[in-house]
Amino acid sequence: MPRYKLTIAYDGTDFHGWQRQEPAGKAPLRTVQGVLNHAVQIAVGMPLSVVGASRTDSGVHAIGQVAAFTAETRIPIDRLGYAISARLPEDVQVTDASLAPDSFDPIRDAVSKCYRYTIAFPLTRPRHPPLFERRYVCWHIQPLDVALMQAAAQKLVGEHDFAAFAHALHGRESTVRRIHQCVVTSPSPGRVHIDVAGNGFLYNMVRIIAGTLAEVGRGRLTPNDVANALAARDRSLSGQTFPAQGLCLLWIHYAGKDVLSV
Amino acid sequence: MPRYKLTIAYDGTDFHGWQRQEPAGKAPLRTVQGVLNHAVQIAVGMPLSVVGASRTDSGVHAIGQVAAFTAETRIPIDRLGYAISARLPEDVQVTDASLAPDSFDPIRDAVSKCYRYTIAFPLTRPRHPPLFERRYVCWHIQPLDVALMQAAAQKLVGEHDFAAFAHALHGRESTVRRIHQCVVTSPSPGRVHIDVAGNGFLYNMVRIIAGTLAEVGRGRLTPNDVANALAARDRSLSGQTFPAQGLCLLWIHYAGKDVLSV
Repeated sequence: MPRYKLTIAYDGTDFHGWQRQEPAGKAPLRTVQGVLNHAVQIAVGMPLSVVGASRTDSGVHAIGQVAAFTAETRIPIDRLGYAISARLPEDVQVTDASLAPDSFDPIRDAVSKCYRYTIAFPLTRPRHPPLFERRYVCWHIQPLDVALMQAAAQKLVGEHDFAAFAHALHGRESTVRRIHQCVVTSPSPGRVHIDVAGNGFLYNMVRIIAGTLAEVGRGRLTPNDVANALAARDRSLSGQTFPAQGLCLLWIHYAGKDVLSV
Repeated sequence: MPRYKLTIAYDGTDFHGWQRQEPAGKAPLRTVQGVLNHAVQIAVGMPLSVVGASRTDSGVHAIGQVAAFTAETRIPIDRLGYAISARLPEDVQVTDASLAPDSFDPIRDAVSKCYRYTIAFPLTRPRHPPLFERRYVCWHIQPLDVALMQAAAQKLVGEHDFAAFAHALHGRESTVRRIHQCVVTSPSPGRVHIDVAGNGFLYNMVRIIAGTLAEVGRGRLTPNDVANALAARDRSLSGQTFPAQGLCLLWIHYAGKDVLSV
């Protein structure tokens, strides 16, 4: 049976994260994997299991989540994404569908991923949080110095032990990861994007990076303090874990392993 | 007792419109006036009644709704808006508070109002509705010709009988209104703003204008057809009533009647 790769976008606000959760004796929680799996099964007309690349947390958004499934269907590949989207609620969309090699595994084959964290801040105080974007940004009440944040972000690029940027419940496996890119930009006055691309991420890593860079932006930490926290592998030296709503999974790169060779 | 003028912004998605609704024997519906009245009473510490300028429908948004109340409070005027906002849910904000003349009546004194209707459309078909803006735009599945829409919009400017652009339930009072401005712009590819300013609006008028201009944009009506519908005062010749979610009350002008003279 053919294997399919889906690219998925969602507004995570009203989901209990990506991963299916069906607590025994209780109603299943509303998850992206749950509603997607249901929609794909109805569209192709057979039971199956959709596997996702990234288990985003409750409240985290995605533009480029990737999932895969194996099925037999007569829906042409250029219609498949629309056929599935038509069966999804308005806060999830399949933005692309393609044929993948039988061996394609969205988790194992991922070479790099990129997340964006968005912060809104006032240019003068006091001011109001952004009303119409409130589901997608983290509101920071103090003004932020974007240039200082960008200088601090550079300290994180490369292969490092990111123990200082992992949630305590991360577990006991290695905390070494390679960050290819960590760029802080301001798309408009009072907005900051933190784009972090790497070969893998620890639990809450981007949200702790965002919280740490915000401490730099408001002047409570220096870029060198961030380098020192990283070197010391000490979670108490980095910033707080910023809220889920500011986080969005932008893309996942597969270096050709997701492409069916003909 | 002093009279206060408030400027209010809200995301109308989760409200049953502006106007307080407390059906007998049932729980009150969640309305903007209801939550605002409650917040103002708590902030100033006395019972009162907040009057709004525009009774926006369920799902309609506002950036510049205006409301007024009379009360005695020791909160300084430059803190009053924040004091009220702090007691409001995250989908409503008081963006400005000022002292107004004792006689200020936000309904009677309004000289002109401006609404914006936002439509999103695909540049090529098929494409997906905007996921993260879905609460604030109307998705139109066919591409739209913005220049044709703008030509048609000009036919509506001036003092006319807008019976062709009023909901059947509008009532029996005059359907003559003066439209000062009706401008169609495209802020980015695949987006249309229809900005309509006038001395007053009939029930559903801007939503019917949006539905009619969209018919022009997709080529099913011409700008002259719109002029003819207006002249004929015939609702069956204009377009459908577009959904509430694309509509936003931008501003209300008072020609100085809202300013306390000192």
